[in-house]
Amino acid sequence: MFKQVTIIGFGLLGSSIARALRHHGQAETIICADASRSVCETVQTMGLADKVTADIGQSVKGSDLVILAVPVGAMEQVASKIAPHLQKDAIITDTGSVKMDVIRQVQDKLPASVHFIPSHPVAGTENSGPEAGFHELFEGRWWILTPLAHSDVRAVEKLTKLYESFGSNIEIMEAGHHDMVLGLTSHLPTLIAFTIVGTATELEDDVKSEVIKFSASGFRDFTRLAAQDPTMWRDVMLSNKEAVLELLQRFTEDLNAMQKAIRKQDGDYLYGLFGQARAIRKEVIEAGQAEFVYPNKSRGTGQ
Amino acid sequence: MFKQVTIIGFGLLGSSIARALRHHGQAETIICADASRSVCETVQTMGLADKVTADIGQSVKGSDLVILAVPVGAMEQVASKIAPHLQKDAIITDTGSVKMDVIRQVQDKLPASVHFIPSHPVAGTENSGPEAGFHELFEGRWWILTPLAHSDVRAVEKLTKLYESFGSNIEIMEAGHHDMVLGLTSHLPTLIAFTIVGTATELEDDVKSEVIKFSASGFRDFTRLAAQDPTMWRDVMLSNKEAVLELLQRFTEDLNAMQKAIRKQDGDYLYGLFGQARAIRKEVIEAGQAEFVYPNKSRGTGQ
Repeated sequence: MFKQVTIIGFGLLGSSIARALRHHGQAETIICADASRSVCETVQTMGLADKVTADIGQSVKGSDLVILAVPVGAMEQVASKIAPHLQKDAIITDTGSVKMDVIRQVQDKLPASVHFIPSHPVAGTENSGPEAGFHELFEGRWWILTPLAHSDVRAVEKLTKLYESFGSNIEIMEAGHHDMVLGLTSHLPTLIAFTIVGTATELEDDVKSEVIKFSASGFRDFTRLAAQDPTMWRDVMLSNKEAVLELLQRFTEDLNAMQKAIRKQDGDYLYGLFGQARAIRKEVIEAGQAEFVYPNKSRGTGQ
Repeated sequence: MFKQVTIIGFGLLGSSIARALRHHGQAETIICADASRSVCETVQTMGLADKVTADIGQSVKGSDLVILAVPVGAMEQVASKIAPHLQKDAIITDTGSVKMDVIRQVQDKLPASVHFIPSHPVAGTENSGPEAGFHELFEGRWWILTPLAHSDVRAVEKLTKLYESFGSNIEIMEAGHHDMVLGLTSHLPTLIAFTIVGTATELEDDVKSEVIKFSASGFRDFTRLAAQDPTMWRDVMLSNKEAVLELLQRFTEDLNAMQKAIRKQDGDYLYGLFGQARAIRKEVIEAGQAEFVYPNKSRGTGQ
C-alpha cells in the first residue's frame, strides 16, 4: 500500500504501528527515526524496521507516509526538522492524544505540497518503549482522524484504509471536539489517577506498604492508568490545558457536593448518584469497551 | 468444621461464603436468612442453602457460626433481632467494609455468652445479588480480622482456619487502623470513581455517548468501581465518615496543586509526580494484587 513509511518516535505506539504495518503487509520499507540512541539500538537488535536512524530530518526522504509518534511537546521541533526533506504529496500524520495543539505546532511548519492529516489511535497500555509494542494493539480500538478543512479527500481515504487494515474503527471528528471528549474520557481520569496514587505515595512507609497490600479493594484500578509514560502525559496535560482545567473544575464541584453530602449524612443523595453511575458501566460493556486486550495472553474480562 | 452456619444477607458476599463453605465441606448445615422475599426465592431455586428463611431472628437458633453479610447500615437492626436467639459460645462475625462503626452498632446488642469477631473479606466484584456469588471469590485475597480486646483466642483461631480454607490470606488489625487503610485503598478511590462517572452522566446526551464510545482511553477503569452496589457504598461512606472526609481533604489538596501546576505550565512538577506514581504500579504487580480473577473465565492480566 505504501512504498516507504517513516515512523518518528519508536515507543509503544511507533513500534506497534511498525509491527502492524509488517503484519498486514502495508509497507514495502519501514524506516525508524528516534532521537534516542538506545531506542535505535533496541529497534536494530529486534529488527523492527528496515532502516534505523537518529537523523530525524533525513529519515523522511522518499517516504510517502510519515508518522509522528513522539510526545505532543516535541511535535513542533520534529516538524521543523523534517519539513525541508518531505517528498511532494507525502501523507503526514501523528498519534498525539491532543489535536488542536499539535495542529498549531505542525501545520505552519510543513510545506503546502504535503498532506497533513492529524490522527489519534485510542489505544495503549501502561508499558512504554519499543519492546512494549505489539501488532494487535489497534484491533477493535478507535482511531480518530481530525482532517483540516482543506485536507485532500483521497489522502484521508488512504489513511483510513490503512488504519482499518490494522483492525481499527475509524471516527472523523473536529479537532476541538476531540480535545474536549478525550479530555473527559482520558486526560481527566488519568490526571485523577496520577493524583490519588501520588496522595498514597506521600504516606509514611508502613501505611504505604499496606495500601499496596490491600490495593485490590479499589486503589489498584487507578494504578494502571498512573503507570503510563510521564513524559507523554506531562505534554498532554499542558497542551490540552484549557479543556483539562475546565473539566477539572466541573469534577471538583461534583466532589465538593459529594463531600458535603457525607458531612451532612445525606444518604439519599449518595444513593442517587451511586445508582446512576452503575448504569454507565452497563453501557460501557454493551459498547464492547470493557475488555483489556493483551497480546499472547487470554482476554481478560476487564470487569 | 461447623455444625450449622447462618448467613444473614445473601448478596454477592453472603452467597459466595455459602458456596465456599459447601465447596470446602466446612459446614454440615447452611441457613440463609434474608429480609428480601425475592432473594430467598432465588436462593431456594438455586439450592444455595439447606434452609432459607426471611425470619432473621429465628434463623440463628442452634447455629455455632453466624455471619452478618448485610450492608453496614443494617448491622444494628440485625444484631438486635438475633441477640435473643443466639446459642451460647456461638461465633458471630460480619463482612462489613468498615469496622469501627460495625463494632459500635453490634457489640452492645449481643449477649456476653457469644464471641463477636468482626472481619472483612477484601474481595468483591461489581456484580451483586445471590446469583453473582462464586466459591473462588476469596482465593488469594486478604481477609482482615479485627478482634476486640477481650476476644476469645480459640474463636479467632477457628475463624482464621475457616477463611484460610477458602484460600484467603489472614491479617489481624486494629479496627481504627483498618478503617484508615481501607479508607485510602477502597473508600476514597470508590468515591472518586462514583464522582467522575457522575460528572460524565450529567453531560448532554450526544457527548455522553461519545464518552462511552471512547471509554477505553481511561474512563473505563473508573466505571468498574462505580458499578458496585449503591446501598452498600452509601453505608460505607457514611459509617467511615471521619476517615473518608480526612482522606478526601488530602486528595483535594493534591488535586489543587496539580491544577495550579497545569495553569502555571509547570511541566517539571507534573513529570516528577507522574514518574513517582508509575513506581507504585510495579509494587502492586509484585504484591500479586494486579490481577482480576473471575470464575469460569480465564485470568485477565488486569493491567
